[in-house]
Amino acid sequence: MIEKIVLAEKLALFEVRWSPKIVGEVGEMHVKLAKLEGEFVWHAHEREDELFLVVKGRLTMRLRDGEVKLGPGEMIIVPRGVEHMPVADEETHVLLFEPKTTVNTGGLRNERTVEDLERI
Amino acid sequence: MIEKIVLAEKLALFEVRWSPKIVGEVGEMHVKLAKLEGEFVWHAHEREDELFLVVKGRLTMRLRDGEVKLGPGEMIIVPRGVEHMPVADEETHVLLFEPKTTVNTGGLRNERTVEDLERI
Repeated sequence: MIEKIVLAEKLALFEVRWSPKIVGEVGEMHVKLAKLEGEFVWHAHEREDELFLVVKGRLTMRLRDGEVKLGPGEMIIVPRGVEHMPVADEETHVLLFEPKTTVNTGGLRNERTVEDLERI
Repeated sequence: MIEKIVLAEKLALFEVRWSPKIVGEVGEMHVKLAKLEGEFVWHAHEREDELFLVVKGRLTMRLRDGEVKLGPGEMIIVPRGVEHMPVADEETHVLLFEPKTTVNTGGLRNERTVEDLERI
């Protein structure tokens, strides 16, 4: 039978920041969970829209024309091509919904790039 | 600038049950919110996987081989082709991720089918 996915249980399985874990798939999209803390890097995804839903904490999404502050139960969809930089002043948990082709650092490759995402 | 989507604000905009509202899009997928109460109908989506994330209340997903009970912060992905029947014993709010082609009653067309979903 199909099993339910309990976000809190999945989030208890890892502590690493900025390294999304795959928890499900819907067609060509992945559902991921990530723990964020501190500043990430400016990047854009050439072909992928990216949804961030805050589950816990506070997420600031810096954009070139301003910033959007999100708390639990709030989400933002960053369209493909739009530069963004996630920042979390405290430990923040997010659910991501994005194409399977999405790389966390977008068109950038550096030490924060996670090439093979773990499925939990 | 990109605006955030506050789930509670969107959910305050409608009371109708079993009629999902579109709140965003990610590539070829829609993000929807719905208020559920009572029993829906047995149906399947021929080509679409469908994600239900409970925001408030309790959702029972009946399946032909059993049922899955979900509370807030819990989700289920019903794969394409799998018959399911959502039931909510109390007022329940869910977030849906599914292809834009998804019809609420799947391969069935009846008085509960919503042909043109409203965007809120």
